[in-house]
Amino acid sequence: MRIALLGGTGDIGEGLALRFARDTDHEILIGSRDPEKARDAVAEYEDVLEAIGAESSVKGFVNEMAADRADVVVLSVPPYYVGDTVEAVADVLDEDTVLVTPAVGMQGDDDGLHYHPPSAGSVTELVAKRAPDGVPVVGAFHNLAAGALTDLELELDLDTLVVGDDSDAKGRVIALAEEIEGLRALDVGPLANAAEVESVTPLVINIARYNDDLHDVGVKFD
Amino acid sequence: MRIALLGGTGDIGEGLALRFARDTDHEILIGSRDPEKARDAVAEYEDVLEAIGAESSVKGFVNEMAADRADVVVLSVPPYYVGDTVEAVADVLDEDTVLVTPAVGMQGDDDGLHYHPPSAGSVTELVAKRAPDGVPVVGAFHNLAAGALTDLELELDLDTLVVGDDSDAKGRVIALAEEIEGLRALDVGPLANAAEVESVTPLVINIARYNDDLHDVGVKFD
Repeated sequence: MRIALLGGTGDIGEGLALRFARDTDHEILIGSRDPEKARDAVAEYEDVLEAIGAESSVKGFVNEMAADRADVVVLSVPPYYVGDTVEAVADVLDEDTVLVTPAVGMQGDDDGLHYHPPSAGSVTELVAKRAPDGVPVVGAFHNLAAGALTDLELELDLDTLVVGDDSDAKGRVIALAEEIEGLRALDVGPLANAAEVESVTPLVINIARYNDDLHDVGVKFD
Repeated sequence: MRIALLGGTGDIGEGLALRFARDTDHEILIGSRDPEKARDAVAEYEDVLEAIGAESSVKGFVNEMAADRADVVVLSVPPYYVGDTVEAVADVLDEDTVLVTPAVGMQGDDDGLHYHPPSAGSVTELVAKRAPDGVPVVGAFHNLAAGALTDLELELDLDTLVVGDDSDAKGRVIALAEEIEGLRALDVGPLANAAEVESVTPLVINIARYNDDLHDVGVKFD
């Protein structure tokens, strides 16, 4: 399978790239608005992966080309770029490509971070509205700390929460997520349930802020 | 210490009563609008506690009398009764009594439960607005499944998230919560961070609904 990480030069993109590259046989396509930046990131990721002896395939492209080649396209861009990024790749998406969104809208103040969804109800639902008709949208990977993903010495024991209206696409993303070692993917129902999933992201960041020993914290449901 | 559980005949009140009674030396005061109902619940809880050989002190009162006697008052009532309950006990609260609120506003539809906070931003902040001046308010115990608390054979390994503007009161509630075996209490900062904490309650209920093996699920941050 080919997994495109649009905005794959950012911290969550890096984390997912490294984990997917190390733990799976899939081809990882790093996308960026600037293909040069994508290739620089790939060189960096390859150094990390080679250092631990991981056999992997990571390549860099401009976002549109990465999305065009992929079976699963992850929008690992900041929330305010999500809409533009979906538009930029819309022409190359089709109903066989699953569009995955991990972004969350947040606002900070002196107290901490607060959930700040767009008028669509959640970034996940915003992506579903902006995606071309027939392209299945799945929300996943919202609540993973980039710092935990990129630290490959850290053994994960975390959950990621997955929402989607297309059961088949959701099942594919759940299976893919669980290929990452130590990651369990939980079905949380349709896209309409995305807000409560996204809201965990500011929460874990607030928990990290107020608890010295819980830096880059994640979540587990038992 | 004396802990009043207002609405302590309800399911979350029952769960907290049983766990506090079994795991701590504190006096547990079950409050209800109807003192007869409170005493019936106490008889029931005592049967459960005696059956496992727990030495405990649980008594039943009308809400106002329970609150008057207590050092910590937990508003274990449904969210739509929270305001009225605070008003009913306002005269007996003072700055030495910590008012604890675990309630969460939710609305359900075919997809699942959705977070539905009052205009104050969260039920926790609503309680802070309605509480008499000087009475410290702490949000805690929002995300615990009553079914898990009441099943005393179940060994907990869960977190509860605690918010409050009064550090001393928050510290007392954190210490109290951690007296329950298997429960870890995490500081999530001031009351302004309550919404993201409360929002986990509909989330865990949605997770339970969409995952057969995660009935009465709780949350842990690591």
